[in-house]
Amino acid sequence: MFGKITEESIINNVVEAITSLRSSHNLVANITNTVSQNLVANVELALGASPVMFYMPDEATEFVSISKSAYINLGTITPIYEQTIPSMLTTLNDKQLPWVLDPIAVGFGALRTKLFNLMLETKIFPSVIRGNASEIITLANIWNLEQTSTKAKAIYSINSTKEAESSAVSLARFIKGTVAISGETDFVTDGDNNFYLQDKHNMMGQITGIGCSLGGAIASFLTVTSPLYAALTASIIYKIAGRISAKQTQGVGDFVSIFLNIISKIDKAEILQNKVLTNGKINV
Amino acid sequence: MFGKITEESIINNVVEAITSLRSSHNLVANITNTVSQNLVANVELALGASPVMFYMPDEATEFVSISKSAYINLGTITPIYEQTIPSMLTTLNDKQLPWVLDPIAVGFGALRTKLFNLMLETKIFPSVIRGNASEIITLANIWNLEQTSTKAKAIYSINSTKEAESSAVSLARFIKGTVAISGETDFVTDGDNNFYLQDKHNMMGQITGIGCSLGGAIASFLTVTSPLYAALTASIIYKIAGRISAKQTQGVGDFVSIFLNIISKIDKAEILQNKVLTNGKINV
Amino acid sequence: MFGKITEESIINNVVEAITSLRSSHNLVANITNTVSQNLVANVELALGASPVMFYMPDEATEFVSISKSAYINLGTITPIYEQTIPSMLTTLNDKQLPWVLDPIAVGFGALRTKLFNLMLETKIFPSVIRGNASEIITLANIWNLEQTSTKAKAIYSINSTKEAESSAVSLARFIKGTVAISGETDFVTDGDNNFYLQDKHNMMGQITGIGCSLGGAIASFLTVTSPLYAALTASIIYKIAGRISAKQTQGVGDFVSIFLNIISKIDKAEILQNKVLTNGKINV
Repeated sequence: MFGKITEESIINNVVEAITSLRSSHNLVANITNTVSQNLVANVELALGASPVMFYMPDEATEFVSISKSAYINLGTITPIYEQTIPSMLTTLNDKQLPWVLDPIAVGFGALRTKLFNLMLETKIFPSVIRGNASEIITLANIWNLEQTSTKAKAIYSINSTKEAESSAVSLARFIKGTVAISGETDFVTDGDNNFYLQDKHNMMGQITGIGCSLGGAIASFLTVTSPLYAALTASIIYKIAGRISAKQTQGVGDFVSIFLNIISKIDKAEILQNKVLTNGKINV
Repeated sequence: MFGKITEESIINNVVEAITSLRSSHNLVANITNTVSQNLVANVELALGASPVMFYMPDEATEFVSISKSAYINLGTITPIYEQTIPSMLTTLNDKQLPWVLDPIAVGFGALRTKLFNLMLETKIFPSVIRGNASEIITLANIWNLEQTSTKAKAIYSINSTKEAESSAVSLARFIKGTVAISGETDFVTDGDNNFYLQDKHNMMGQITGIGCSLGGAIASFLTVTSPLYAALTASIIYKIAGRISAKQTQGVGDFVSIFLNIISKIDKAEILQNKVLTNGKINV
Repeated sequence: MFGKITEESIINNVVEAITSLRSSHNLVANITNTVSQNLVANVELALGASPVMFYMPDEATEFVSISKSAYINLGTITPIYEQTIPSMLTTLNDKQLPWVLDPIAVGFGALRTKLFNLMLETKIFPSVIRGNASEIITLANIWNLEQTSTKAKAIYSINSTKEAESSAVSLARFIKGTVAISGETDFVTDGDNNFYLQDKHNMMGQITGIGCSLGGAIASFLTVTSPLYAALTASIIYKIAGRISAKQTQGVGDFVSIFLNIISKIDKAEILQNKVLTNGKINV
């Protein structure tokens, strides 16, 4: 039991999300950083979604209009983002489309801060926020939800998941959505229900874009399920595929290819075999 | 027999193109989207060409001037493309260099449409157009060659190859070059001679950039052979390497590495063993 | 003996650099081209550093301020570089941070030339320059150190390492740092001590970004050792890992994954086993 949610119902929802997405070719509109853009696209494809990526403001409007969900990852921003992100937010709001925010590098750069402030001012909030502990704490601070101040070491967390829990819960309640912290322990919360996913293989921190691509995976699952289950499904898949890949891999170099193979085929049996959810509780 | 062209002469031309390109280090100038830029470069290198990639208008002029062919892929365009593409087109025309156009996302975004219109106005046309069925139909429509209207699902085709055939033939005659449609069945036409390549492995649609990199492969072969044979050679290699890779791969994750290995070594024996051309006919 | 430096002391310094960097998570600030950005990040991570990548001028200032070294690779520049590189150079100078310059495509494009001129005017020079033979000759020429004029075939060298040696020595003395030429034979010089690394596997030239990522590797080692030893350590690792990878690989497609595995684990035993330094001499 995870509070009022049984383990069985979680697993059923997760398996259903995986099955619904696979081969659906559901369109996901992505603004994401150039470092891991290729990996984000390949993860979304491997899960059965159809990614589209773009930089121009009018394309944001056009592509979001025909997509079933979206992903905004604010790494490696360029000047055009000053127009593209507002354009994208407006369309996301008009279409009431679910979307994922990766607040990567929050706290660095005037334009990035301006874009986070714009979300606050327009109250156009993501359905799911996915970040590391320091990013979650910083975003909660920038959005005036927590007094605690921190700053990531660039894009690397200097905080433990534990330290960011209350910020995550505050953010989830504030956006009326779900927040997922990535770390040694992953933490997923919708503000009421908290889930912990333990024992991430440390190799996942040694490969660029794993966290960014998790955001893309959540955005993909948003096309077939709720924010909470989109975050849980993607996080559970990542934990399990990470463990299996780490066993099969020769090192950091061939990890991603094995990981993509596994997430493209993962099924109920593997999910039942690899329990990753522990210590669930209802915080209400 | 494929109309007036014998199968033997096709195979001889294809094998000659592969051999001529391999280790030639022929320079290919590329403007291509950031999602698959790395793969495009690696495909061109694997085939023996030397890719150079850039975004600035004056670099387009300088690099095209010293290259033997070029590739323009209009995915993930940015504001500078408004200056870079005109600059590149002018130089391509001045130098009478053969080049490949991938009309990815045609129909989306004002700048992209403006750039396609510019080609129409200046009559600076590619030697080869490579796209999916919906893109070929849309481009023929934008260039006033066909009344049929369609629009891709973002960058994914909603049309069959069959539906796009007449658009492809019209486009090929209009540009006095070759058009290659990628799909379950590939279709290559120079406006007079039509070729069908069947049974593409569906895994090739589940990996980002395969189509984009095929454009890069055609551009590479344009440095050593005619537009028709550049398109045919690249398409035949892709079909064969796709089939072989799909058999050897564990999944979508390790497909690209196997595929690159194969295209870098493919030889006459493999081409003779894996017949992919069927149903050739002369349409004149 | 390599002049006054014994082979034993080189190996000890190299092994110490590898060990110090591994798992250090030392932050490296990177401006690098979009073609190989993902590989640069993964190489830095595989060696134990923490890369951060960005394009905006104020982010250059902020990220450089908290980093231990930096890398500037001027491939695929965009208009914003006109502001970002000056901002980055100023901060590098203010913080006296060691950094690596990859003068890729030097001689092409007005903005790129302007940025190299800015370094000359402000006398803000890199600790290490890493390039191919033609780039090193061209940079020495642009910085008025050598009369010899050359121009790379775009980003590919048309000169031998031998032809670029005197330019490299001049540049090293001029910047009071180290210059590393990549080629069949690698050449590393601090202006006084010259090192040759022989027998690079030719496969390394057939994969995009190997040279760019070597620049990232040197920048990573700059966080733990001197410019000379950063260049030597990275170059030695690349030579050895290149040789081992070439033996294990099926082709150009799976080379990078094997290469990353090897550099992430390379140790003293492998370095002792694979002697790559030859013909060392003191040029004073």
